[in-house]
This record gives sequence, C-alpha cells and structure tokens, in this order.
Amino acid sequence: MISFSDVEAAADRIRPYVHRTPVVTSSQLNELFGAELFFKCENLQKIGAFKARGATNAVMLLTDEQARNGVAAHSSGNHAQALAYAAKSRGIPCTIVMPDNSPTVKVNATKGYGATIIFCENTLRAREEMLNKVINNIGAHEIHPYDHPHVIAGQGTAALELIQDVEDLQVIMAPIGGGGLMSGTAVATRGMEKVSGGSAFHIMGVEPELANDAQLSLKDGRIHPPKPPITIADGLRTGLSERTYEHLSVLGVEVHTCSEKAIRDGMRLVLERLKLVIEPSAAVTIGVLLENPGLLEGMRTGIILCGGNLTVDCLID
Amino acid sequence: MISFSDVEAAADRIRPYVHRTPVVTSSQLNELFGAELFFKCENLQKIGAFKARGATNAVMLLTDEQARNGVAAHSSGNHAQALAYAAKSRGIPCTIVMPDNSPTVKVNATKGYGATIIFCENTLRAREEMLNKVINNIGAHEIHPYDHPHVIAGQGTAALELIQDVEDLQVIMAPIGGGGLMSGTAVATRGMEKVSGGSAFHIMGVEPELANDAQLSLKDGRIHPPKPPITIADGLRTGLSERTYEHLSVLGVEVHTCSEKAIRDGMRLVLERLKLVIEPSAAVTIGVLLENPGLLEGMRTGIILCGGNLTVDCLID
Repeated sequence: MISFSDVEAAADRIRPYVHRTPVVTSSQLNELFGAELFFKCENLQKIGAFKARGATNAVMLLTDEQARNGVAAHSSGNHAQALAYAAKSRGIPCTIVMPDNSPTVKVNATKGYGATIIFCENTLRAREEMLNKVINNIGAHEIHPYDHPHVIAGQGTAALELIQDVEDLQVIMAPIGGGGLMSGTAVATRGMEKVSGGSAFHIMGVEPELANDAQLSLKDGRIHPPKPPITIADGLRTGLSERTYEHLSVLGVEVHTCSEKAIRDGMRLVLERLKLVIEPSAAVTIGVLLENPGLLEGMRTGIILCGGNLTVDCLID
Repeated sequence: MISFSDVEAAADRIRPYVHRTPVVTSSQLNELFGAELFFKCENLQKIGAFKARGATNAVMLLTDEQARNGVAAHSSGNHAQALAYAAKSRGIPCTIVMPDNSPTVKVNATKGYGATIIFCENTLRAREEMLNKVINNIGAHEIHPYDHPHVIAGQGTAALELIQDVEDLQVIMAPIGGGGLMSGTAVATRGMEKVSGGSAFHIMGVEPELANDAQLSLKDGRIHPPKPPITIADGLRTGLSERTYEHLSVLGVEVHTCSEKAIRDGMRLVLERLKLVIEPSAAVTIGVLLENPGLLEGMRTGIILCGGNLTVDCLID
C-alpha cells in the first residue's frame, strides 16, 4: 500500500504540469440534496480528467534508464491521453495500443499529445499481446492505468487539494473503476484526518449497479471479476486489482450504486445547474445521491467530478 | 460615466454574495487560435451569469428608504434571476414582470430565489406598462438590467478579477448586448492599465452579425436601434442606452462580429474542449475568433464567458 507521504510528494512533483482544479458549489444542489456539496472539477484538469495526475507522477518518477525508450499502455480511454500528455511533459516517446474501433475523437486527442498509436482487435487478449510486443520490440516502459503505486499516489492529489481547499469536510465521494482514484483518495483522506485531528471521514465510493464488482468484492472479502461492459459509465467497467482492493478494504471505503437512469439524470443536473460537462463516470456520484435521499444528511461533502471527456455530437443541433 | 473606484468599491461590496469565478485555460484552444487565452467562468457565477454582480451591487447600494418596498424589473433573462437573488441576499421583496411565453425553467428559477412573478404580453410596451403599475402600486424600486451606474460598476468586477488574477494580459473580450457588461469591463480595464502602468489593452466587444447595433453605433457616432430579435444569442438582442454608448465610445471599445454558425461552433468547442456549458451569448467571443484567424496574434487574452443558462433538453437523450 502507498502512504500519505507518497501522495504529498506526488502533489509537489506534478504541480508544474497539472492544474489545481477549482472547487464549485451550487446552492440549488445543496437544497435539493440537503447537504453542503463541494465539487472538485477534474473535468477541467489537463486532458479533461484526473488521470493526468497519476500518469504524470508515474512518468516523472521513472529513472532515466527506464524512460529512455519511452512509455506504453493499452487504453481506449483517458489514460491514453494522460500518458501521452505526461510523456510529452517529460520529453519522451509514448506508444498507445488502442482497439481499432476506438472513437476518432479519442484517437486524435491522443495523437495530439504526440503519442504513436498502434491499433489492435478489441479484445483484452489482443490488447495485452500487442502491448507486450511493443514493450519487447522498442523497450518501452509500461505504465498501468491503475495497478501502479505511483499512479495511485498521483490520483490521490485531487482529494488532497479538495480537503486542503474546503474546511471541515465530513464526506469524500469518488467513483470506482479499477480503483486507482479511490485508492489514492482514501490514502489522502485518511492522511488528512490525522493532520487535522478531526473526526473520521466517510469515504464513499460509487459504482453503476451494472458494474458493482467493487461493492461485491468488499462485501464478500474477495475480488469479484468485472461485469459485462454495458454501463454508459465506460470509465468504470474495469475491475479491482489486488493492490487497489487492499487499499479500499483496509481504508474503510463504503460503496453505493445507482441505476443507468440516475447516471443520465446526474449528468443533466450537472450540465443544467453546475454548467459543467462531465462524463457518465463522473455522474455516478450524483446518481447515487438522486437515488438515496438523505444519504448525506446535512454533511459537508467533497465530490470528485473525475472527468469531462465524452462525444458531444448530440449536444448542439 | 462611472469611475474605476466605483468598480473597486463594488468588488468589496458584493464579495460576500458572489463567487470569485475561476479562470480556465486550454492548450488545445491556445494552439487552435494562436494565442494565450484565459477564460473567466461567469457561467459558474451565482445564478449562472455575471448579472449577479451588477444586481447585487445595485441592491446593496439602495438606501433603507428605497429598499423598503423591494425591487422590480421586467426581464425574461438572467437579470430576473440576478435581481431575485440580490433581493434575497438583502432580505427584501422582488417583483419580476415576465412575458407570458417565458420558458418554465426561467420562471421556476426566478421563483426559486423567492421573487414574485407577474406575467404580461410579450411586447416591450406591455412589459413597461406592467412594470410601471408594479412600481406605482407597491412602491417597488426599479433596477434596470444595464442602464444603471451601480449595475455597470458591478458588472465591471468580473474584468477586474480577471486582470488581477492573470498577469500581463493584452486583450479583454466580452459580448455587448445592452452594453452594461462591456461598459463595466472597459472601465475596469482602463483603470487597471493605470494601476499597472502597462501598455494599453485592446478592448474587444463582440456581437452577432444579426445584432450588430453597437458596431454600427460606434462607427456612425450615433446610437442605432436594436435589430430584430432573431439571433440565437438571446442575451445580446437589446440595444445600447445613451449611458452605455458613452462608456463604449469614450473608452475605445472595438467591436467584432460573427455568424450564427460560428456561435454554434463556439458553443460546441467550449463544451468539448473546456468542458463548460455556456449560453449562446457567451459563445460569440469564440465565434469571432473562429471567423477571424490571426485576430489575436499570440496575445495574452482574457475572455469573459458571460453565462451558462440555457435549456439543455437536447443535451442528453
């Protein structure tokens, strides 16, 4: 497991490369949910998601020897752009293996940060095989999207900033996919508890009902595999690793879920009231609040809006 | 004309009631436009638009005698919510005259801040007659949406904050409807020039081509009436008053225009790249940049994203 000082060191390390994102509030949403909500805008982060934090921390921590042939990962999502951005920041090459049915907008965004894209079939096996080829052939260093201590430490800096910027928070909410964000969030939160000497936070992870593997894993005390990838919250389809499972279970993360309809309603609410574009994965926190009235009972709650990357073809006609 | 110290005093006065909104950047947009752009997020302001600033300043400056029977205005737009919010902040009644075809969402939002709504026919004459009745019958004090020195001073605080928060800006861009925001922006900008002793800013106002009355007015040296209200930038359909015309002409505001298509493309670009919901009136700045490549030539430019209130029924299906 990583330590609080890993998160603090990550914050110092990545500061020149990422935004300290703003925290926004809405009196209308506070009224609606009967709580004081503080939204950490990682949708306004570099590359449009918190993933810039973890990837940057991991890339900056590589030795010159490790960094010499650049970095690589397979990803069709935000980690692709994040790793490309981090590699560009350090001035090293980046190779991303992407399924050949990836949306053009994601491919172009990743290319825009200077990465080389290698396409493969859209199966986990094909992706892993192709990534192994890349690693063996060009000697690139793999940076995993969440099962990596330096990535987890970087992701924890979002919660660290949020708790530093808003006094007397009692609850922290963030979504769980592979568990990298939630692991870092939990470490940062338990660390800040000790620093402030205040009472314990509720650390609430959220998942779509259709992808509630983390909830089942923590309940049963063993890792459940990911569900079929059908939720619209495409960033939350992956399952926990041993490493992220350990962080979540040891640090007392509770998990709440919501329906697909609540995710859509949450996105709409954030668009209309907060004037922010968020991706479905970021709307699951709001979805959980919509379906669990009274869950926060007047509590000061920090919510990590994890990202804002989605195709907005439908948004304007 | 109002003075820079009016804007500075307004900033102190309204500070407890409005947000110091964040400034966001996008390296992708910087690359696209060949300039360094800093976006002031007034879409994240209280009530979703800069109008909260001016209305709050005007309401707080009323004497107890003036405030006794509350405030009133006719508005179907952001001023309605802004005045209702400001009146609620001071604890006085607010009456808004609205056309009977106003969108339910705007009516409900204004009611949500505790205002009384009185409906009338959707003509300027019917609105003014009804407002006069309200003023005569209940003794409410009228707060005009832009032709009011305290409103203008309040609106100027957005540019003041932007220039304080971002070093070495060279250009300020904001839209022109009735000219309240632009008048305040120009006063704040020329004032900050003197404080910093730097070189002169370019102050760029923007309008839809379909509502370019301010451009024509400044060109011809006389106020042109507003155009037929057909642009999608519904906040910019109104015309200048003598007062706002004077501010704009004396303070050297240049005006640029763009097409309706550019406004739509600008909204889309801000949604996709900045992850922000903005109203059409706020997208006209981006529209002007899209249709005038090279306009900013590497300049550090502050852009006021004036608001984010629009119906987003079409946004999520």
